[in-house]
Amino acid sequence: MKKAVILLSGGIDSATCCGIARRDGYELYTMSFRYGQRHYVELEAAEQLARYFNVAYHSVVNIDLRAFGGSALTSETAIPKNRVPSGEENDIPVTYVPARNTIFLSFALGWAEVLDSRDIFVGVNAVDYSGYPDCRPEFIAAYQNMARLATRAGVEGRGVTIHAPLQELSKGEIIRLGDTCGVDYALTHSCYDPAPDGGACGECDSCLIRKRGFEEAGVADPTRYA
Amino acid sequence: MKKAVILLSGGIDSATCCGIARRDGYELYTMSFRYGQRHYVELEAAEQLARYFNVAYHSVVNIDLRAFGGSALTSETAIPKNRVPSGEENDIPVTYVPARNTIFLSFALGWAEVLDSRDIFVGVNAVDYSGYPDCRPEFIAAYQNMARLATRAGVEGRGVTIHAPLQELSKGEIIRLGDTCGVDYALTHSCYDPAPDGGACGECDSCLIRKRGFEEAGVADPTRYA
Repeated sequence: MKKAVILLSGGIDSATCCGIARRDGYELYTMSFRYGQRHYVELEAAEQLARYFNVAYHSVVNIDLRAFGGSALTSETAIPKNRVPSGEENDIPVTYVPARNTIFLSFALGWAEVLDSRDIFVGVNAVDYSGYPDCRPEFIAAYQNMARLATRAGVEGRGVTIHAPLQELSKGEIIRLGDTCGVDYALTHSCYDPAPDGGACGECDSCLIRKRGFEEAGVADPTRYA
Repeated sequence: MKKAVILLSGGIDSATCCGIARRDGYELYTMSFRYGQRHYVELEAAEQLARYFNVAYHSVVNIDLRAFGGSALTSETAIPKNRVPSGEENDIPVTYVPARNTIFLSFALGWAEVLDSRDIFVGVNAVDYSGYPDCRPEFIAAYQNMARLATRAGVEGRGVTIHAPLQELSKGEIIRLGDTCGVDYALTHSCYDPAPDGGACGECDSCLIRKRGFEEAGVADPTRYA
């Protein structure tokens, strides 16, 4: 059985990647990060999803992005509320974490090499989050090119593929696709600023995009709001 | 004053990069990693070098490469002794750590973005360690291409440059160059398997290459052997 390493944040996109990889016959190896987030609700969601998808191994890597600061997601800057993201390329949200996807993919690459896996899945999509430079298709393509040169597998002529199957999809399309793959979105978490009991705020960028996504998909929204 | 982020392992190559960057007028920001190494002698060497070069900030990042195993440097596999590296591309040493340079460069990239630095220095060289895929010039070029797409600076049209000034130099040439830049090699550490007091074993690949380097350079070898 071919193995896939999947970056699993616990949100809609990465959960959908699990569903797609399972549908496509991969054995799943999921990887999450404890990186100095404000809250760990998303890590709990990732763990539940890993159990739901019956993955071969769920790895949680400790890294310290606070070491260089610079983002609302890892510091005490206020999270913007009820703001509609413009989708403009150079309107980079304050929730952008410097080089985060580059760092996460690099850990996935190391793990894939050890597992002898040639397939890494990442749930980036350029439509909703075009403000994040490291979610763009040209970034993923350049990453894959670099990854093929970085590893033993590459030297031995076996490439690594970075799968970003959601790249061109809207949030609604992602949810519809995941729905057909049997993803249970009740287990996912999106909110940047959850209540202590894990309930979603319903007002941050991420909650607004999620809400619109379920509407667009015509799928019942299972989100538990605070 | 322009800022440079320098990956500082505490060895000859990264120390030489510090000397070059200082000579070229950069303010130095050095970054080391506690990544589950067998020993921390190299981290102490990095700290001493940071002090010697009077850097603006020396950052030590905790990451857990043991999470996916796979290398003699982070597990209990025996370190090979008195083996002469062949220099063949597909003879990858067991001391290779999967995706290590990819991961280290990614942290440097995040820090550079926060510091608004456009220059990252890495001491890879293709001559002595051609067995490590992530030390090859084509890897560095591909990494830089990816890095320019990964960050806010890239989106805003300001690129990041990955400087690998030692890329084509032999160990002897590196030592001669560093000597002219005032690098104190007595502060550096190379041994994969040091004695408890930090003395070098004199027999591992890294010690052998270092010894030959000083001979080739015609520079007195300041190494303290166990």
